[in-house]
Amino acid sequence: MSLTHGRRPLVFNAFLTNTVSHIHHGMWRHPDSRQARYTELELWLDLARTLERGHFDAIFFADTLGPMDVHEGGWKTSVRQGLQIPSGDPVVLLPALATVTEHLGLVATSSVAAEHPFVHARRFSTLDHLTGGRVGWNIVTGTRRSEARNLGHDDAAPHAERYAAAQEYAEVVYKLWERSWEDDAVIRDRESGRYSDETRVHAIDHVGPRYRVAGPHLAEPSPQRTPLIFQAGSSPAGRDFAARHAEGTFIAAHDPHSAAEVTADVRRRAVAHGRQADDILFIQGLTFVVGDTETEALARSAEIDEWLSDEAMLAHMSGTIGVDFAAIDLDRPIGDFTTERTQGIVAGLAAAAPDKSKTFRELTRWAWSQRVVGTPEQVADSLERWRQAGVDGVNVIYISLPGTYADFIEHVAPVLRDRGLMQREYRPGTLREKLFPGRGPRLPRRHPARQVTIAAAG
Amino acid sequence: MSLTHGRRPLVFNAFLTNTVSHIHHGMWRHPDSRQARYTELELWLDLARTLERGHFDAIFFADTLGPMDVHEGGWKTSVRQGLQIPSGDPVVLLPALATVTEHLGLVATSSVAAEHPFVHARRFSTLDHLTGGRVGWNIVTGTRRSEARNLGHDDAAPHAERYAAAQEYAEVVYKLWERSWEDDAVIRDRESGRYSDETRVHAIDHVGPRYRVAGPHLAEPSPQRTPLIFQAGSSPAGRDFAARHAEGTFIAAHDPHSAAEVTADVRRRAVAHGRQADDILFIQGLTFVVGDTETEALARSAEIDEWLSDEAMLAHMSGTIGVDFAAIDLDRPIGDFTTERTQGIVAGLAAAAPDKSKTFRELTRWAWSQRVVGTPEQVADSLERWRQAGVDGVNVIYISLPGTYADFIEHVAPVLRDRGLMQREYRPGTLREKLFPGRGPRLPRRHPARQVTIAAAG
Repeated sequence: MSLTHGRRPLVFNAFLTNTVSHIHHGMWRHPDSRQARYTELELWLDLARTLERGHFDAIFFADTLGPMDVHEGGWKTSVRQGLQIPSGDPVVLLPALATVTEHLGLVATSSVAAEHPFVHARRFSTLDHLTGGRVGWNIVTGTRRSEARNLGHDDAAPHAERYAAAQEYAEVVYKLWERSWEDDAVIRDRESGRYSDETRVHAIDHVGPRYRVAGPHLAEPSPQRTPLIFQAGSSPAGRDFAARHAEGTFIAAHDPHSAAEVTADVRRRAVAHGRQADDILFIQGLTFVVGDTETEALARSAEIDEWLSDEAMLAHMSGTIGVDFAAIDLDRPIGDFTTERTQGIVAGLAAAAPDKSKTFRELTRWAWSQRVVGTPEQVADSLERWRQAGVDGVNVIYISLPGTYADFIEHVAPVLRDRGLMQREYRPGTLREKLFPGRGPRLPRRHPARQVTIAAAG
Repeated sequence: MSLTHGRRPLVFNAFLTNTVSHIHHGMWRHPDSRQARYTELELWLDLARTLERGHFDAIFFADTLGPMDVHEGGWKTSVRQGLQIPSGDPVVLLPALATVTEHLGLVATSSVAAEHPFVHARRFSTLDHLTGGRVGWNIVTGTRRSEARNLGHDDAAPHAERYAAAQEYAEVVYKLWERSWEDDAVIRDRESGRYSDETRVHAIDHVGPRYRVAGPHLAEPSPQRTPLIFQAGSSPAGRDFAARHAEGTFIAAHDPHSAAEVTADVRRRAVAHGRQADDILFIQGLTFVVGDTETEALARSAEIDEWLSDEAMLAHMSGTIGVDFAAIDLDRPIGDFTTERTQGIVAGLAAAAPDKSKTFRELTRWAWSQRVVGTPEQVADSLERWRQAGVDGVNVIYISLPGTYADFIEHVAPVLRDRGLMQREYRPGTLREKLFPGRGPRLPRRHPARQVTIAAAG
């Protein structure tokens, strides 16, 4: 990375799901939280306005299509706790948010397992048009058994198969977005009555192991053509997919040191695939708990712990790791688990935990939230360290919705701006131009989306 | 129908697609038309505001997933003319329109062939939440070869198979919408920390010939649970599907007499399926060309004919009927075609045409638009006749977007209101309560959506 790269402001996204409780389970009960009103448009419109006022780069919606169902052998705990269920489709929130914002990036997850690529391609072209080029797509492949069972399968496909499917899916949508309509195909010639030059619009005639798609793409080219592409993969195959395709990748490193390892590895893989190291932005998930003094911040953090639901935090951990921790003794130190049945998994978590004397309860609270606790200045110091480790931005995890973002913008953002860590104003143009200034609205030619080919005829 | 039924105001929907040119092809070139800006949010927001100001009941988006490709043996004419291509996804327009309206119904087409029912069910639940219960779903089964070829098939499935698939699809989404979450499942109990009562949320465990869906539904019950259901089927199987499922059905009768035949037939079928005759609203597609005098209206109609593109109107007719009319002599009277290769089809059209001396050109202009030409009073007289024939409402086809609707609201609506043909204000409640006053927000128990069952456990 160049020195100037290290001094660019970080990217700030609000990191959410369209649900009651995303990560800090139990917080929906807090009197200040509006999370239980997630079905109402006004919550999201307010949030989008707040984020744009605070010059956040984007709002980023994670999503899943099946509940976590490992804790106590099923999904009942998830339902009881509002643990990412009930939930709503995130994609249909984006056009509503576009009506009250002008610059905010609008990023939603859409699963390769759930949507046909032809239909998905038109939907995201439409969103890119309606938002003036502010849309991002977070590609996921569907990892949960519960998702698979909602979509006609017995279990999630094996890892390699999912990434092979995602690879072909990407090729199909790239052909539709990048090759079906030439740049000058839409002429809107009122004299001759030709809306499009039909000689410059092409079928894609994709025939692959999983998909057959004739085309042409139904949508005319949108400002970005291909929406900004996010992908988060932590396995070797996932990292490789991100290295090939992603313009932004969400990471959940335990500390700047391990973030440096991931970013270096994925950037190296990207270069091996003919891309540039700075073609990918690494966005670290972090939670901020801030006070005027460190003591105040620590007191707030302790208060949050009181609100958290142990059962839901444990169910989230069980669901993510795939081991039912329902019967575990939450008050035992992590270090004690080395001889248990679950020792491999717990030991893995313990290895990442800085302090082996912490209890399992503390681990569940700490594992998914990456809490940064301190004064605004201490937060800025922490973010400097993340930036030095090669991180380009932060997915800000909420504790309380929408209060977390309002507080961050009021108390932390001014300090970050003074330190050059957060943008003061939006750059012009599409989301891609805002995040990769000077490169134009489209993907660079070295990206695989620009390298797909279709037969010349038709 | 009761006498009072015959005196209820008609339902008025704006009938559109998210595209350049829906039915009156060539009109996009007119200086007053904004159709060529269909990719911009502002056009649709303006239109929605206009429609709500004029107390239209709903905005109704038709859709297809493949271009018309019969004329000259392919889709090039469609692309050249902007004939429903390029197009955008209509579903993602709805949440944007919800932000600028309070009462307007928001109806979009979504195809059984294109969307998985589990994903579709959550998307429409989300829309119903975000809009406060104003969403309708127009069920289509996918009839075009070009659609099929975009979705992995060689051709559209046979008619009976498509309706069998639609039947199972409806069962799956009904189970998710109506049975997965009991009415009192969502408790939001901040004291106990239970968002939902997990004993009242159920898997659906649907196993059928086409779909296997475990559930539970991801979304909590929305105001209408099942969105208002539209379906337009003209074949016997289509009429039967409408009779079972539809709350609104779009018809394109040539005159009130044939409308009376359709409405009576479908209502009879509905009663045979255990529904009431007035459980289905029949919405006739009509185009209005209005002047202060009949002479002025006729002159406007002639002016519209001048703007229409013969090539595109013919391509639309070729695409709909499935016969390439590219080489036909547009100036020959319809009556002359009785000995041609295409005689069966043309004779069918000619039989429906009131005047056999009309030319083929006149037929293409007349066939899809059902033009009513006259003064506002003459339009009201015409609508009285449609209402007497059992029609409950009108899908108003645009000539120019958004001018058609603004003109209708300014010049025709006041006369219709004076005659009791159009509502003066919105009724309270969801779209279903607005269209079926006094029945509550949910489907009646006699509807098949309320009669699906799931296993009691889980």
